[in-house]
Amino acid sequence: MKNPHLNTLPIDYLYHLGLDSSQDLKGKFGDVKFVCMMGSAMRIAEFAKKVSLHLAIDEVEPIGKTERCSIFKVGPVLCVSHGMGAPSILIFLHELVKLLGHAQATNVSFIRIGTSGTLGLTPGTVIISSAVLNGKFEPQLEQIGLGKSVCYPTHIHQPLAQALMDAKGDIHAEFGITLGTDDFYEGQGRLDGAVQPPYTEEERTAFLHLAYEKGVRNIEMESTAFSAFCHRAGIPAAIVCATFINRLQGDQVTTSMEDQHLFTGYADQLVLQFFRKSHWLTK
Amino acid sequence: MKNPHLNTLPIDYLYHLGLDSSQDLKGKFGDVKFVCMMGSAMRIAEFAKKVSLHLAIDEVEPIGKTERCSIFKVGPVLCVSHGMGAPSILIFLHELVKLLGHAQATNVSFIRIGTSGTLGLTPGTVIISSAVLNGKFEPQLEQIGLGKSVCYPTHIHQPLAQALMDAKGDIHAEFGITLGTDDFYEGQGRLDGAVQPPYTEEERTAFLHLAYEKGVRNIEMESTAFSAFCHRAGIPAAIVCATFINRLQGDQVTTSMEDQHLFTGYADQLVLQFFRKSHWLTK
Repeated sequence: MKNPHLNTLPIDYLYHLGLDSSQDLKGKFGDVKFVCMMGSAMRIAEFAKKVSLHLAIDEVEPIGKTERCSIFKVGPVLCVSHGMGAPSILIFLHELVKLLGHAQATNVSFIRIGTSGTLGLTPGTVIISSAVLNGKFEPQLEQIGLGKSVCYPTHIHQPLAQALMDAKGDIHAEFGITLGTDDFYEGQGRLDGAVQPPYTEEERTAFLHLAYEKGVRNIEMESTAFSAFCHRAGIPAAIVCATFINRLQGDQVTTSMEDQHLFTGYADQLVLQFFRKSHWLTK
Repeated sequence: MKNPHLNTLPIDYLYHLGLDSSQDLKGKFGDVKFVCMMGSAMRIAEFAKKVSLHLAIDEVEPIGKTERCSIFKVGPVLCVSHGMGAPSILIFLHELVKLLGHAQATNVSFIRIGTSGTLGLTPGTVIISSAVLNGKFEPQLEQIGLGKSVCYPTHIHQPLAQALMDAKGDIHAEFGITLGTDDFYEGQGRLDGAVQPPYTEEERTAFLHLAYEKGVRNIEMESTAFSAFCHRAGIPAAIVCATFINRLQGDQVTTSMEDQHLFTGYADQLVLQFFRKSHWLTK
């Protein structure tokens, strides 16, 4: 545990998970080696089933209170939904890291499997983050802690990102810098929000092209918090994203539900292939 | 519609709601007068049932794709879950305001019914926000739009807040300033996150007492974005929160599930009593 204050608590209530340290967390979670996180509770349930089929582990057990997130444990893989945006994922990151600390789990890696818009690549391409920038193109998470701004560097664990890429097989995957913003509409330069944005169409096009020139290949809303928090907590972390639309061609997500399902399936499949190769999960 | 860019779209896809403007939005949503928002999909389903009983309207219909939020329409009341944190609620605010614009709904008010920690009041007290401050004690939402910081003032519609207070009946409710932060752990001065916080116990206690002196009576994570966005969109907005714990006495949410349910029930009940009195909803 990296926070000495936790030693003073008789019981640590992991409020949003619906678990606490008076339970047998070591017996239940001591064998976890990978935490996979996705925004949607629906997608994480589907992913947990795929992990179960892929690793031939029968149990897919829903855990905790399910009100704020969905958690499934499939052998050494913990699958957790995190909602949308940095404040939401940070809650679950804090509580999952505490959970695994109480459980004395060792050598755990975190993988976010997200959905995103791409800049310049064909929708359906899987993007493995090589680095992460915030909405101001800075490689850091800016947080307000106790009324003051505190910055934490974003960091991708390169060996883990490379091991994921090495498992891509026939899947079309590329490395790219990920832009993690705090807003879906104006933070990502969209023109189609409910209110008139504080920029012109020309300014937003210039912004997206500048991002492309900086090496940004996809845009989503959790990578900054995810990569900065995991680094701060000393946990290897990587990000694999499906892409639905090319933001250089428009703002709206017009991708059919069938294609969305197909494209997220590629990102899932890449991670499953990585698990099959992983020395942690094969015997 | 406050955004002229929307006039250029042949169809407006409200991606996170799973609806689009080619549907009969006017027929379906033209009569909406109140939008009630809560973080949890589970709580909003329960609240929609209460509205249905209270207004004697039989239909409680789940709407849209349900993956990112849950929406129920109960006569003139639209009930929507918004997840946790500003980035998440902003997505739904943009898309709901566009939805109601397409539907040509008129005189719509937004009410957030949240859960929070209190400063100094007895848990169970319902707090109606008199004003909203961000995590730096500023009455504004700071957003990154197109890489630049843009600030929008928070604003509570005082007649709506007063009308809610006037409907409290036997419920213990108080006005108070709400602190809306972007982080549950360090943004709210908790010591019990997964990593050592960048402040001492003395500094965090001084911070919470300073907040109390400024008139802050509860702390949550969406009021800043909610009140600033509604004001920007020209929509009357108020915030009613249940309180679970007194943050001057500790960080952890040790409140039993029974008490949590009881306390959120008080906030729900206050809004239901307000509906009964409302000239919009009674005939």
